[in-house]
Amino acid sequence: MSSLIPGQTVAKHDNRNSCWIIVHGKVYDVTDFLDEHPGGSKIILKYAGKDATEAYEPIHPPDAIQNNLPIEKHIGAVDPNTVVKIIKEVTEEDKRRQVLMDARPPLDEILNLHDFEETVLPAKAWAYYSSASDDEITIRENRAAFQRVWFRPRILRDVTSVDWSTTILGCKSSLPVYISATALGKLGHPDGELNLTRAAAKHGVIQMIPTLASCSFDEIVDAAQPGQYLFLQLYVNRDREITKKYVQHAEKRGVKALFITVDAPQLGRREKDMRMKFVDDGAGAKVQEGQSDVKKDQGVARAISSFIDPSLSWKDIPWFRSITNMHIILKGVATPEDAILAYESGCQGIVLSNHGGRQLDTSRSGLENLIDIVAALKAKGPWPNPNFAVFVDGGVRRASDVLKAIALGASAVGVGRGFLYAFSSYGQEGVERAIEILRDEFEMNMRLIGARNISEIVPEMVDASALRSHASLTPADNLYNTTYQPLSLAAFRNAKL
Amino acid sequence: MSSLIPGQTVAKHDNRNSCWIIVHGKVYDVTDFLDEHPGGSKIILKYAGKDATEAYEPIHPPDAIQNNLPIEKHIGAVDPNTVVKIIKEVTEEDKRRQVLMDARPPLDEILNLHDFEETVLPAKAWAYYSSASDDEITIRENRAAFQRVWFRPRILRDVTSVDWSTTILGCKSSLPVYISATALGKLGHPDGELNLTRAAAKHGVIQMIPTLASCSFDEIVDAAQPGQYLFLQLYVNRDREITKKYVQHAEKRGVKALFITVDAPQLGRREKDMRMKFVDDGAGAKVQEGQSDVKKDQGVARAISSFIDPSLSWKDIPWFRSITNMHIILKGVATPEDAILAYESGCQGIVLSNHGGRQLDTSRSGLENLIDIVAALKAKGPWPNPNFAVFVDGGVRRASDVLKAIALGASAVGVGRGFLYAFSSYGQEGVERAIEILRDEFEMNMRLIGARNISEIVPEMVDASALRSHASLTPADNLYNTTYQPLSLAAFRNAKL
Amino acid sequence: MSSLIPGQTVAKHDNRNSCWIIVHGKVYDVTDFLDEHPGGSKIILKYAGKDATEAYEPIHPPDAIQNNLPIEKHIGAVDPNTVVKIIKEVTEEDKRRQVLMDARPPLDEILNLHDFEETVLPAKAWAYYSSASDDEITIRENRAAFQRVWFRPRILRDVTSVDWSTTILGCKSSLPVYISATALGKLGHPDGELNLTRAAAKHGVIQMIPTLASCSFDEIVDAAQPGQYLFLQLYVNRDREITKKYVQHAEKRGVKALFITVDAPQLGRREKDMRMKFVDDGAGAKVQEGQSDVKKDQGVARAISSFIDPSLSWKDIPWFRSITNMHIILKGVATPEDAILAYESGCQGIVLSNHGGRQLDTSRSGLENLIDIVAALKAKGPWPNPNFAVFVDGGVRRASDVLKAIALGASAVGVGRGFLYAFSSYGQEGVERAIEILRDEFEMNMRLIGARNISEIVPEMVDASALRSHASLTPADNLYNTTYQPLSLAAFRNAKL
Amino acid sequence: MSSLIPGQTVAKHDNRNSCWIIVHGKVYDVTDFLDEHPGGSKIILKYAGKDATEAYEPIHPPDAIQNNLPIEKHIGAVDPNTVVKIIKEVTEEDKRRQVLMDARPPLDEILNLHDFEETVLPAKAWAYYSSASDDEITIRENRAAFQRVWFRPRILRDVTSVDWSTTILGCKSSLPVYISATALGKLGHPDGELNLTRAAAKHGVIQMIPTLASCSFDEIVDAAQPGQYLFLQLYVNRDREITKKYVQHAEKRGVKALFITVDAPQLGRREKDMRMKFVDDGAGAKVQEGQSDVKKDQGVARAISSFIDPSLSWKDIPWFRSITNMHIILKGVATPEDAILAYESGCQGIVLSNHGGRQLDTSRSGLENLIDIVAALKAKGPWPNPNFAVFVDGGVRRASDVLKAIALGASAVGVGRGFLYAFSSYGQEGVERAIEILRDEFEMNMRLIGARNISEIVPEMVDASALRSHASLTPADNLYNTTYQPLSLAAFRNAKL
Repeated sequence: MSSLIPGQTVAKHDNRNSCWIIVHGKVYDVTDFLDEHPGGSKIILKYAGKDATEAYEPIHPPDAIQNNLPIEKHIGAVDPNTVVKIIKEVTEEDKRRQVLMDARPPLDEILNLHDFEETVLPAKAWAYYSSASDDEITIRENRAAFQRVWFRPRILRDVTSVDWSTTILGCKSSLPVYISATALGKLGHPDGELNLTRAAAKHGVIQMIPTLASCSFDEIVDAAQPGQYLFLQLYVNRDREITKKYVQHAEKRGVKALFITVDAPQLGRREKDMRMKFVDDGAGAKVQEGQSDVKKDQGVARAISSFIDPSLSWKDIPWFRSITNMHIILKGVATPEDAILAYESGCQGIVLSNHGGRQLDTSRSGLENLIDIVAALKAKGPWPNPNFAVFVDGGVRRASDVLKAIALGASAVGVGRGFLYAFSSYGQEGVERAIEILRDEFEMNMRLIGARNISEIVPEMVDASALRSHASLTPADNLYNTTYQPLSLAAFRNAKL
Repeated sequence: MSSLIPGQTVAKHDNRNSCWIIVHGKVYDVTDFLDEHPGGSKIILKYAGKDATEAYEPIHPPDAIQNNLPIEKHIGAVDPNTVVKIIKEVTEEDKRRQVLMDARPPLDEILNLHDFEETVLPAKAWAYYSSASDDEITIRENRAAFQRVWFRPRILRDVTSVDWSTTILGCKSSLPVYISATALGKLGHPDGELNLTRAAAKHGVIQMIPTLASCSFDEIVDAAQPGQYLFLQLYVNRDREITKKYVQHAEKRGVKALFITVDAPQLGRREKDMRMKFVDDGAGAKVQEGQSDVKKDQGVARAISSFIDPSLSWKDIPWFRSITNMHIILKGVATPEDAILAYESGCQGIVLSNHGGRQLDTSRSGLENLIDIVAALKAKGPWPNPNFAVFVDGGVRRASDVLKAIALGASAVGVGRGFLYAFSSYGQEGVERAIEILRDEFEMNMRLIGARNISEIVPEMVDASALRSHASLTPADNLYNTTYQPLSLAAFRNAKL
Repeated sequence: MSSLIPGQTVAKHDNRNSCWIIVHGKVYDVTDFLDEHPGGSKIILKYAGKDATEAYEPIHPPDAIQNNLPIEKHIGAVDPNTVVKIIKEVTEEDKRRQVLMDARPPLDEILNLHDFEETVLPAKAWAYYSSASDDEITIRENRAAFQRVWFRPRILRDVTSVDWSTTILGCKSSLPVYISATALGKLGHPDGELNLTRAAAKHGVIQMIPTLASCSFDEIVDAAQPGQYLFLQLYVNRDREITKKYVQHAEKRGVKALFITVDAPQLGRREKDMRMKFVDDGAGAKVQEGQSDVKKDQGVARAISSFIDPSLSWKDIPWFRSITNMHIILKGVATPEDAILAYESGCQGIVLSNHGGRQLDTSRSGLENLIDIVAALKAKGPWPNPNFAVFVDGGVRRASDVLKAIALGASAVGVGRGFLYAFSSYGQEGVERAIEILRDEFEMNMRLIGARNISEIVPEMVDASALRSHASLTPADNLYNTTYQPLSLAAFRNAKL
Repeated sequence: MSSLIPGQTVAKHDNRNSCWIIVHGKVYDVTDFLDEHPGGSKIILKYAGKDATEAYEPIHPPDAIQNNLPIEKHIGAVDPNTVVKIIKEVTEEDKRRQVLMDARPPLDEILNLHDFEETVLPAKAWAYYSSASDDEITIRENRAAFQRVWFRPRILRDVTSVDWSTTILGCKSSLPVYISATALGKLGHPDGELNLTRAAAKHGVIQMIPTLASCSFDEIVDAAQPGQYLFLQLYVNRDREITKKYVQHAEKRGVKALFITVDAPQLGRREKDMRMKFVDDGAGAKVQEGQSDVKKDQGVARAISSFIDPSLSWKDIPWFRSITNMHIILKGVATPEDAILAYESGCQGIVLSNHGGRQLDTSRSGLENLIDIVAALKAKGPWPNPNFAVFVDGGVRRASDVLKAIALGASAVGVGRGFLYAFSSYGQEGVERAIEILRDEFEMNMRLIGARNISEIVPEMVDASALRSHASLTPADNLYNTTYQPLSLAAFRNAKL
């Protein structure tokens, strides 16, 4: 429509009094927005008058600026030939990463999901992905909980063919696992969430699209294959019209289920992520006594989440029901009380999740909550209930973990970080390898527990009696331990190796 | 009144037969006191005939010498111009500390209360503050106990605004936390307890003044703002008249509540503190066989506490009731039996405390005791009881800890070391930062558990079933562990970093 | 019969299109078999046209190639004088091992079974023997379970003479221990399983012959002494005729009992073993992105086990009963349900085993399962039942472990790795030393618990109340632990040593 | 009587065919005894024809050779002037020890019983004293058990004066602690057990004299003060006449109680001690394959204990009753069944002991057994029973440990290693210091739990609910732990220290 704006014109608006930036070829006047920017004004001013796309991209939803900035501040398209190319400097961090990428183990030496987690990631991605809240107790408890459930394998069943495929909310899945929503995929890999979409297509796995994806919703859906199933994870906006538009658009584009996040009225304090900010900025180096005078941002999580509505409540559920026919699943349920409320409010399911340990620290694991919640639901209605699904996520690394959750009553299990690390290090092929590993593990483990298909995985196949056991040791008797000298093995003669 | 005494005159009394010292410009004859000094005579003789103020100050209540030395031994005021200035030598320890102070992280990088505890402190302060009794099991158990309580967060409540302010013994507090009494603040910072008073004023927090403060009671009260609430912690003196005078003076100056310490008829053996003395004195270096012939002091704790009355008993409670109208709270209750006795004896509350692990080692944590004691009080009277408050202290580092105690029945929680380390390293600003961190954590955590105010924090929000669980492992099978070789991740190709 | 084939003729068939190899002096055409070889074609092609005996031997049953390759592919005998001797190169690994062998502790310094496990073993043997499945949790739990059972020793019984001999399935045994089947003994020692046979003969111990022995079944039986008792472990072949022939041959040669492995329809993923393959092949070094294009083998376990029949089921038991009169024991039972099925299906016993932790990870230990299973069997029939024996294996290192299992109801206990490491490091003498150590321990421990013979070892002699206890700690509070400074002992004066 | 034998004559009997040795100035012909010597012939042959006193002394009861060698082999007294003085060479070990002795902390820096245990000891003493059986699990469990009992301290009792003295089997004791019997005191200090006797005299503590003392029984009794109480520990000899003589002699000399060891029909395998032997002998260095051809001794414990009668049984108790009027106490009871038998057989008490973890490994601790046993005795008769005392030993390091045992029903507690290490490092003064430390701890702890005397220490003062809890963790998830990166504190700016 309007003519292109010369880069030189943009370049004049390079300060706090008039601040224009270029994002994806469009010019925006963000002068009035500077003080509202959740990430602080400092980072924007760094790009005042310049092309901010590269910094903008991995940590904002692609349409964030368009949706959030008043239309009158949308100045127009820039003339691409006139924009000064920002030569990205190769930082020490970039070099460090490249060395690690070159040294990665080849993919066929990746034998389990843990292997993807070696810190090949860019430092910022690592800090954002791996961090959890406060003392990071819940994130580790999520893992530990699976290992308090033991198998009771059955023998002498003909397990020549075993089948671990299943149906999740009416959608066929080759695994009893779905790809859970995680934010900001481009921090780890330039293709971001598309790595997941493509691998999911190839292997018949369902992907849950995150609200805070680095790729736009439509980019992801466009990358899907015909017939490929997609779910949507939703952070509810303070402006319900934005949410309504987003949800209805998703339904129109074929998304099958809506997972409303209910455990994040405010995003958690993730100190690893927050500390990364300080390192990144070299901040504070000159400030010793008292506060530094520039407001620091508080990690990526806070910066990107200010739109989330803390007023979201049970009263909103009927409204969601009224705007969409998708399955509605509440993601982040932790108590039988709320599970029953979800059931009674007409939802189609719940995810027992603590947000990967990223929200309320010392929350219990989804697996532990599963026991109480299944008992409560059984007392309330039919079980298994074809109209109400229970999912679990958090801490899954092995197919055996999934089998334990299923034995205890879960329909399927969400895996987030596992796939996130896989594509951050190896792109789409990493995700495919992760799926193959799980598939191999499912085959072996189902044979070994004596279950030929998902329905044969029954509660009697696990011993969960220790799941509720939370020990902390009597603090160490350090003096005694110092004086005690451990036993040693028979001594070798002076071997020279 | 009398004329000034020349420094030269004082200087002649520089030995065991006649020993004068100067403290705060006054001259005292301590010859007869040498053998009674709880810290031993050696340390006094070091200052015989000289100005002892600098050594005296951080480890004695300011008026200790005036109150304890018979009036006839108060020689008079010294002529300041004639006192030889003691050039304080800069010790290795001083230098070490200065380097650390210069290298401290800027305050806005302090993200939690743990961050204050890095050992920037002078070695003596660190030894005195951080030490606990015997094997230091209880001090660590205090922390561990909080982590055996898990959250059961509720979802989908409108948590747009959350309010964590409360009322403690009728006094408004911006946090459900008060500053608990800790001794000898000047060991850590020249302004001592005043750092707390000033920060508390700014943030609407209540400070409990310690009997063993380095600042005098009146200095602290004088530093308070109009309307600022103060409590008083009391070690009861063998001479009840001193106690009576002290309590009534406090009431007159507006203190609202009297916390009588009941878990310290004798101060605990704190071996870290005791070992510091040996290091400090270079003591014993020449003594190999048998006892050294100078009586060593046994750490700061013993030195300053000989006035405490071990005969204090339930019979004294009516007397306290008779001398003051302040609320009377017993600090250091550990059993339901004693909680009921406190209730029946007309006290207004109790603190479930083990003195920060500094008294009887392998005592249980206050948090664990809370469960039994609340149950006992519920069986005895109304609950919550507006006339009988239950507080907890020990091991608190996070707002989430406080929320757990409140869910289990506590009115508020005391924090001692957290603030002590904050001002030792950063003065008043450190305390303010600590309060801000707690405030941020309260906001987040209350949203995440689904409580909009303190009264919405209910027992159902926590799972305390593991709180009574005290495990110690079967001792390690060292031979087996030596032969077992742990799994490793996929190997990187020789990366050069 | 036919004339000898010249080595030069064989040497021409050195490629994928025509691939002959020599094994034990016989020539085989394996061209069509290349793609079926469970260990991949690459390893065979390395020996195309050459003598493959040395590589073949430790990881194949001696008659595997004869039994599995169609008779028309058996070309004939090679003329030994014409075969080019492959000069085995001395690898770094060979040298490393030789140094360790020279430095081994003398046998009389080996005081317990752990002492045999120092890694003197060739790297491949170590990887294959020591590995277990997935996260190797069950293998370690096997050991830990014994240490959750505590003794309740009885006193003042005349224990001048104590007797720990017993009868196992009607066979006299000098110990309540049998040598359990483990595969591929020649990986550890050139004499392989014969080391066990010879030592067992000398000490009156029963050996269970493994299906996957490196020595042939007949070699082992031939090495036995007259009257020496042998059992047979069986992996059931997809081709039941092979199994039938094998079982009936064993019975004819005097084997007393048939232990059918029921916990291995598919062999587990053992990642240590799998990783060793990569190291061994130098594989993947050039492959960075994506899969390497040669199919890697997946560790020894998978390579050797493809014949095992995953369809084996309860329906097969009557067939086994019909083909043999040996005792039939099911090895790998883990639940009371299956123990009862085994009993009702006419078996003579079961082994509570999880395959040394090599199959389903996070399976419970045999010792823990023993409690439930004995209770179930007691409810079902006479106890102890002279017609139904219960054995346990996994994690045994001490005679005291054996006594605990016996007290809880086991007839005897299987030891696998203990003897395997013993002969890998010291040959037959190592096995003898292991038996002597156990004998010494039995003597001492039986005296100390007050049991004069096996029948006096009763349930009351152990406290197994903790056996069901599976704790995982609340994840560490790393920040707190960083700030806590442990107590130290009294300091020494600068000792120069 | 007979004339003195010249050293030169002795020197001729320097070989296996005729072997004489000198011990304490007497000449013995031990030729026939060489093969019976529990410690092997090699060590005797080293001294053939020479003075063996120095090697003999610390590990044999002084009269062992006289009592055990037939009278006709007692050749006579040697002429001291003719004996070649063996110049004791100063070994590396002697030098190492001297350096450590010079560097010991002065006694007043010893703050607790742990401080005595730093390895100042001669290597052989350390190996013998510190070792325990098998995997040394019980020795450490003994300590851990105390830390599973928590205090429930009472407040506001007048604790001005507290009294921790008591009466043990009718004998006044200044502490509720007695010195338990431990063998071979001269390994640690040339004065051996006399250090204990002298310190006990000064402080009103009761010493239990060990059968295997390095000092003779009479030396110890002679060193006692008039009125000093002594008990006797007894290993029962296969030759009951020797035992009878020994017991009756003890009674005649005023010993008040006889503690018959019932948990040692055979002394345990203590591998640390056994390994020391190998190091000591430089044994095996040349032996690689197979057994070394000289029979090795199996540690000190076995060498000195062959006289102990494994046939000792309940039938012997009446006989003991018939030969002495001393109190008879059974040392080493571990079950309620045996406690009741002891009570019914007319004993005056029992010691709940596992021999310091030196006999049956994975036996439960005495403290844990105390609970069951007190319950059983209560069900059987009056409680506390003035005619039947229950003692506990094992793992005591703090007065608080003792108080816990007393609260749970023990009359008093035995301390062995604590005093043994004290005199090994500091002689008599070390033992006195240990007693003083305990006294200080008793004073403090009794005040802090609110007990003014031993009878006020009641069961309600402890929470022993965790005492029965024996956890072993789910084995570590090493892959996960490798990928998890712990939180760190705020970073310091590059401090140079």
